Formats: sequence, structure tokens, C-alpha cells
Amino acid sequence: MSHPTRAELVQDVAKLVLEELARHGVSIVPGRPRRVPVGVTARHVHLTAEHMEVLFGPGRQLTKYKDISQPGQFAANEQVMLIGPAGTIDRVRILGPYRKQTQVELSPSDARKLGIDAPIRSSGDLEGTPGISIVGPRGSLRLNQGCIIADRHIHMTPADAAAFGVADGQAVRVRIQGSRSGIMDQVKIRVRDDFALDMHIDTDDANAFGIRHGDQVELVLEEERPEP
Amino acid sequence: MSHPTRAELVQDVAKLVLEELARHGVSIVPGRPRRVPVGVTARHVHLTAEHMEVLFGPGRQLTKYKDISQPGQFAANEQVMLIGPAGTIDRVRILGPYRKQTQVELSPSDARKLGIDAPIRSSGDLEGTPGISIVGPRGSLRLNQGCIIADRHIHMTPADAAAFGVADGQAVRVRIQGSRSGIMDQVKIRVRDDFALDMHIDTDDANAFGIRHGDQVELVLEEERPEP
Repeated sequence: MSHPTRAELVQDVAKLVLEELARHGVSIVPGRPRRVPVGVTARHVHLTAEHMEVLFGPGRQLTKYKDISQPGQFAANEQVMLIGPAGTIDRVRILGPYRKQTQVELSPSDARKLGIDAPIRSSGDLEGTPGISIVGPRGSLRLNQGCIIADRHIHMTPADAAAFGVADGQAVRVRIQGSRSGIMDQVKIRVRDDFALDMHIDTDDANAFGIRHGDQVELVLEEERPEP
Repeated sequence: MSHPTRAELVQDVAKLVLEELARHGVSIVPGRPRRVPVGVTARHVHLTAEHMEVLFGPGRQLTKYKDISQPGQFAANEQVMLIGPAGTIDRVRILGPYRKQTQVELSPSDARKLGIDAPIRSSGDLEGTPGISIVGPRGSLRLNQGCIIADRHIHMTPADAAAFGVADGQAVRVRIQGSRSGIMDQVKIRVRDDFALDMHIDTDDANAFGIRHGDQVELVLEEERPEP
């Protein structure tokens, strides 16, 4: 019986260990950059230009309160009230610029308070989502769909994606340090030329993990590629 | 030069791999029971018998609303209001029986709303924690200390601890499945003869991970033993 080479044995064992780890849902991404800054995203609304006028009056336009992390996007001075079957939330900020569809992004606890069974979706994926009533200073409207809990996601450029070794649409994991540390799964990678590197999480995740706006997290573990 | 045996090589490589994983904070607990039911613990107050009378009137006693997971403990019908420098929270339930120290357990978002910088502590470990004002139907009091964010913890019996392969005071990790899955670190094991197997998390963790009362989580990874 011939001896296997050392290299063959090492490969055999490494393969077995990685398979065992994969069965535990764990795989390691070695030798890659890892740190990603985090933006905590409070509940907010994106409006169509048409809905802007319904809520704020004919001819009224969004005015910039401040720029936010993604180039060209801004928090507006304008705010609205959300009314759901179980409760209301006042002073919810509008983010600009206008979108093709009006969209309400909630945290799970916001959705619970409003009594709206909002699904976890990527921004813009509104088919079949629940509606809500929105009240502005000059008018109100009833959306038939548009309430989501935004998925955990990381914006990055194609160059970032190459450096991290990830692809658009891929789900990754991130490690959070600190006094309420842990790992967040199902963080979607979003790649676009004009994106700035930034992980977006909602206020529930921020509170649970003790994360503050501007903290950094570590991309440590990758999940399976998305289904085609 | 003699060849090492296959078994020797496998052990060498496995050791190296496990050391590398340990450097990433990961180690596997094989072949153990894993599932633990979760109780979501909303903000609540434990009172001394003396403080009970201050808030609810002389001679008044807690009355049971319902039993909770740990034997002998119960949610009371009685509720109080909490007043902090930045806000108030009404209808906060008392848990019985009486304790030697009055203690207010908050979620991070509760603490933020009240404007109280509550530390993460184990129940009963109140030295140096911030105070708060508590208002009941018949009186109010000002605590000099007692506000905490309870640590994530798992109650179990010595028999459970032996089966899980964990020790009292040890910090473990748990895996949460579902649409907002992930891993929670720094979950403290609490072993006592009269404990029922139950993981206790606050409402922020429940919202972030999409956990409902009675869900099950999986104890998958162990952290370092506590320092003596």
C-alpha cells in the first residue's frame, strides 16, 4: 500500500473540515479586505413627484436637509405621518430624489406598532407588499402597496466587490464587535458604479447589536450565491 | 526519512485548522444537544416589598397576572411608569416575587428613549448602575441605582448544563434561523437546580432577529470560559 503524499492528505482533511463547517453554515473568506462602515437607516419614505404634490401641495418640491451616504441621495426637510391599522408614527422623514414608486421603509418594531405585516424586501421590490396611509401637511393618500422592511445590505462599487471577492446580489455575513456582538446573516451585496461603500441596517438591528452610525463591521463569512 | 501515518497527519492538520478558526473566534461544539426555547422579555421592574408599598400603598401586595417560564416567578397585574431625563415609558409590568433590590430591566431602545445610559449586566448586579424615577398609582420613588440592560442569558439545570457541555457563567453563542438570521454572542449560561431551560432576550434582539416568544434557537458555538 503506497503512502499518500503530505499535500494529498492535507487537501483531504481540509476538504472534510470545510464540508463539516459548511454543514454548520460556516465558511471562511481568507485574505480579503473586511471592514465596512455602517449607516443606521431610520424609518423613511420615498415619494413619487406626484405624491409629493398630493401631500405637500401643488408645485411644492422636496428641500434638502442633508446629504446621505449614497451620492445624489438626501434626507429632506419634509416629514409625514404614517397611519396603520394598529397605530401611527409621526415625523417620518422623506428621502430624495423622487422615485418611480412611493415606498415606505420600516423597522420590524415600526411595522409591529403600525400593525402592518411588511415583508423583508430589497428597495424597489414592492409587488404584493402591504399598503399604508400617509398624511402630509396639505393632503393625504392611501398606498395600495409599498411598505417593506428593507433587507440588510451593503452598497459598493465594482472595484470594492472585486476587492471583497463578492458579487452583486450575493448574500454575505458580517461580524459585529462590542458589548452586544454577533453575526448578521443575509446581508445583500449591491454593486453599482455610483455607490459608496456602506452597510445599511435598520434601527432594530442597530439597537440589538449596539451599533452606532459610522461604526465599522467586518465581512467575515460568505453564504451561498443567490439562485439565478 | 520515515512517513508519518495518515492518522498523525490528519490530527496535525485538524489541529492547525481549529487553531486558525479559534483565531477567528470560531469553535465547533460537536455531538451535543443544541436547541433552546426562547422567551422574549419586555421591559419590567422587580420591586422590594418596601418599594411595593411606596408605589401602590400601605399593605398592598403584588397580584399574579400569569406565571412566567422560571418556576415561582410571575408577571404581576401591577404596572408603573418610568421617568428618565429624556422621556417616559408607561405601563411597565412588575415581576414577582419581591427582590432584595429594586431593579429596572430595559432594552437598549428603552434606555435611549428614557435617556438613561444603562449598562449590560446580569440580573442583581446593580453596583454603579444609573437610577431612575418610578411612579405608581399611590406614590413615587427615586432610585439611586438599578437600571440595567439584562445580558442575553440561558437558564438551565445542572443536568441540562452537563448535556450541553457548558458551565455556569460561561458565555456561549446561539444561531438564529429565519428571515433575519444570525448569531448572538455573549449569551451567559445560568445554572441552578430550579431553573427551567429557557433563553431570555430583550425586545430589541427579538425584533432584530425576527424571534417570537417560544421560538427555538441553536447553541452552536462556544466562547472562551469566563475569567476566574
